This record gives sequence, C-alpha cells and structure tokens, in this order.
Amino acid sequence: MTYHVDGRLVPASEATVNVRDRGFLYGDGVFETLRVYNGDIFEWESHAERFARSLRALDFDEAMPPVDDLEQRVLDTVAANDFNDAYARVSMTRGVQAGKLTPDPRVAPTITVIVDELPRGGTGGESVWDDPATLRTAETRRIPSAAIPANAKTHNYLNGILARLELEGTDADEAIMADMDGYLTEGATSNVFFVDGGTLKTPATDLDLLPGVTRGVVLDIARSEGLPVETGHYSIPDLRSADEAFVTNTTWEVRPVTSVDGTDLDVGPMTRLLGKLFDERVEAEHY
Amino acid sequence: MTYHVDGRLVPASEATVNVRDRGFLYGDGVFETLRVYNGDIFEWESHAERFARSLRALDFDEAMPPVDDLEQRVLDTVAANDFNDAYARVSMTRGVQAGKLTPDPRVAPTITVIVDELPRGGTGGESVWDDPATLRTAETRRIPSAAIPANAKTHNYLNGILARLELEGTDADEAIMADMDGYLTEGATSNVFFVDGGTLKTPATDLDLLPGVTRGVVLDIARSEGLPVETGHYSIPDLRSADEAFVTNTTWEVRPVTSVDGTDLDVGPMTRLLGKLFDERVEAEHY
Repeated sequence: MTYHVDGRLVPASEATVNVRDRGFLYGDGVFETLRVYNGDIFEWESHAERFARSLRALDFDEAMPPVDDLEQRVLDTVAANDFNDAYARVSMTRGVQAGKLTPDPRVAPTITVIVDELPRGGTGGESVWDDPATLRTAETRRIPSAAIPANAKTHNYLNGILARLELEGTDADEAIMADMDGYLTEGATSNVFFVDGGTLKTPATDLDLLPGVTRGVVLDIARSEGLPVETGHYSIPDLRSADEAFVTNTTWEVRPVTSVDGTDLDVGPMTRLLGKLFDERVEAEHY
Repeated sequence: MTYHVDGRLVPASEATVNVRDRGFLYGDGVFETLRVYNGDIFEWESHAERFARSLRALDFDEAMPPVDDLEQRVLDTVAANDFNDAYARVSMTRGVQAGKLTPDPRVAPTITVIVDELPRGGTGGESVWDDPATLRTAETRRIPSAAIPANAKTHNYLNGILARLELEGTDADEAIMADMDGYLTEGATSNVFFVDGGTLKTPATDLDLLPGVTRGVVLDIARSEGLPVETGHYSIPDLRSADEAFVTNTTWEVRPVTSVDGTDLDVGPMTRLLGKLFDERVEAEHY
C-alpha cells in the first residue's frame, strides 16, 4: 500500500509523523473520510467545505492548501495503489510546534492521505457492510458544542470510541448517542434517520452532531422525490418505536437498521427507496 | 535530543509513529507529564496510578507494561540526554489496528517518551515561569465526564486548546473553564486554587476536572500545616473576588495568579507559604 505524507507518496510502512506532531500529542487536527467511485471523489466540494470549516473551528484554516491541491493528493494516492473504488482519509494537523499547548499561529501543517480498496458502488455495486445495522444506545453522551464544536471533524474521537466500547459483548455494531439533555444526536460514525407515520426524520443540526455529507445527499434526494421530511429534536424512544430506520456515512452509504436496543425493526419501503435512489445517483455521476 | 519509542532510544528527528497509529488518527491514547528533579521522577507512584486509571477509562489497561518498566523508559531517556532536571511526557496509545473506530481488544501499544531540559527545582532552584499567571475565563466549557471522563488524561486535548485559543490578543496565559452548569473547574493545563477569608479552596473532584498530582501534593501540604482547606463547587465570580489565587501543574509547580478576567489580585501570604513548602519538599526529597 502507498500513502501520502506531506506532499510525497510513501510506502505505508514508512508513512509516519513525528511524535511531537500536535495531531499525535493532542489530536490537534481535522480529517475527512472520502469515498472514491470509479477514480473520482464523491461529493468532493461538500467534503472540502467541511474540511475548511473544521480547520476554522481550530483556527488554522489559513494553512489549508488550495482545494485542488488537496484533491490531487487524494487522487494521486488512489492512483498509486491502482484502486478504482476506494476509501480515503485526508487529514491535516497543526504539525510540530515549539512550546506546549497554546498553538503558534504560524503553522507548518502535516497533511496525510491513507487509502484502502472498497467494492464498486452504484447500482452495479455492492455494500461495504454484510448485514443491516444493529444499534444500541450508549450511556456515553455526545460532547456538547460548548466544549468542542460538534460540526468540526477532528482527531479527537475518543467520545465515539468510548460509545463503541460499550457495545462489547452485544451484537450491536453502531452506538447511538444522546446529547446532555437526552436528545437523539447521531451514531459514533454515522447519522441516523427514522420513519414515523410516513415522514422521514433526522436530528436537526442545531443539536450536537456532525452533519454528514451522506446525510445531506439523502435529505436532498428525499426532498426532490417529494417525500415528507422533517429535522427536529427527538428522543431515543422515538427512534426505538420508529416504523423503519437507517444510518448513513460515507462508506456505509444508506445502511438499514434492523434492531435498536434489542427492539426489532423491519427494513421498510422508504429505506429501500432511498438506498436505491442513492445508488442510482452514484451510478449516474460516476460510472 | 534523544526520545524513546517502543522500547528504543532514538534521535528526536527519527522519533515517529505510523500515520495509522490510533493515537494519531483519533487521539486514542493516554499520557502523563512528569517532572524529573535531580535525575528522579517527582511523585512517580501518583503519576503511574493515574496513567493506569486513564488506560482503564479507555479499556486497554491490560496492555500496560509493568510500572518499573515504564519508569525505566523515562529515566533512560532523561539519562540519554544528560539531563538532571527535566520535563518528560510518557504516552501510550492503542497502536495500529485493523478496522476502523471500534477498538480491537488485542492491543500492541505504542509507548513514547519525549523530554526537555528544565531548571533545577527545590529551594535552590528557579521556576519555569517568568511571571505570575494571568487568567481569563474561556467561553469554552470543560467536556462533561458523561462524554469523556475528565479524570482520564488522554490525547484528546482540543478542549483545552480551544480555551487557550480564546486568549489570543489578551495578556492572559492560562484559560479557566467552567463546566456545563457554570461551576469553576480548572485551567487548560492546570488546577486552580484560591483563598477566601483565610480558607484555601479548590474545585472538588466530583466536578469535571483532572485532579493533578501537584494539586494533591499542595492539598497534602496545606492539611499537614493545619491550614483551613475546602474543596467544593465554586463559581467564576468566587475566583475573581478571591483574596489570593494560584494555579498548579507539574511544570509550573505553585504559580501565583495576579489577574483574573482583568481584575488584579495580589500575591498573598498563603500562596507564598505553599510555594515555599512545596519547594522545601522537593529539596528534601530530591537534592
């Protein structure tokens, strides 16, 4: 495997960062998870926008290279591995700095790209998951934006890891988190949707959650189909008693949910429709 | 400079971790900041205990090497640099694992030690700081323990970084954080004490704060001197209106505070006494 570190393609085994890199010391960095379909990045503009927004939240967006340069690093890494369909993670940290916790405004960032092969997407493809998702509500609460802005995607991911650790010994594969007030927010690495009385619902972005790119695409598709869509503040029991539910992220795409906290759910017609329309959009745009 | 990575002393420039190390990807690791006085680690047992507790919070304490082995890595690194008095940061991450966010229980940890020279401590020494501390309350709130346990010292340090970033353009050098309910917790890298009507006060450990080793030593000294000591729930205005205040951490030791949110404070007699007694303890134990 070949990765990309600070402007150079390197063998994965030599893809390293200094132990004093602030990304390692403090998780002082941001990243995006990308899906490459047939050699092209899905929704690159949305990912690049969020990348910039995450950097702004951490106050080192001035060090961001041009968007095209960033995209090229990803595409070069994918090409160097002869992948057509791939997962890519592009990351930028504040790099090595003198001093301790307080950042120096002069940033020489560390930019890395790691990749892995994925199956073909679109209508002729297959999902990265074998089975629908089984969800469990974690006791771990989502970090409030007053502590770390939830809409920044950073290297500080312990919150999601702690939620996932709670799943040990269960059959669940995604941990759902409530915020400090008990409102449903999101999964450790996914956004959550459910259907209630024919309306598609997902937690609103004024809650402490990261609005995923796939979440945005699904909402867009649903609205253009004229489906009833609502974003709002919901409880965990709202999700448990839903008619159907699914989770979304860049690699899972639209993944149906068949269980929430031990309560079974059927894979319903709206989930199936949105999954199909999502695949059709990917097919039309990339293959 | 020589650092220590995974059991080997290496030149600082070659001290690296893989870009897929979970410490880099997610901040999935713990650390301790240590003070070496005259070749020996100050309060090693307390630091080692907290290190183990942090690992337990992240559920990979089983991968912790014997405490003596960990100590030896620090001492070897200090010795390799010919330091007598030093700062050391020992860190342990969940290392490189297959898969994505959910940790694999089989952990091959990444253990690193970085060091830097510090002035001599004790009564014959000098402080690492030039001036007393100037504090400002940050708008950033301390992460609640329901999201990430506050008493675990982890590589997820963005909360403190965001608080410190708020100080830009001010003369402050430490950011004080309240919890979600508005109670005073701690500084970005320090615990805070203040004196009110002759009583030494510091936020209690049932709040979202990391109980520092230096905090513990100062409380111990104050109690053995028979000084009135109270831990409790305080507000930011309590701190602002204090008779005196100081902040503590491993490198600062006891650092007087001369300003809180623009309100001046005098360096008072209790701060001076505790600073002197702290230095005497270090002198007696290490020189």
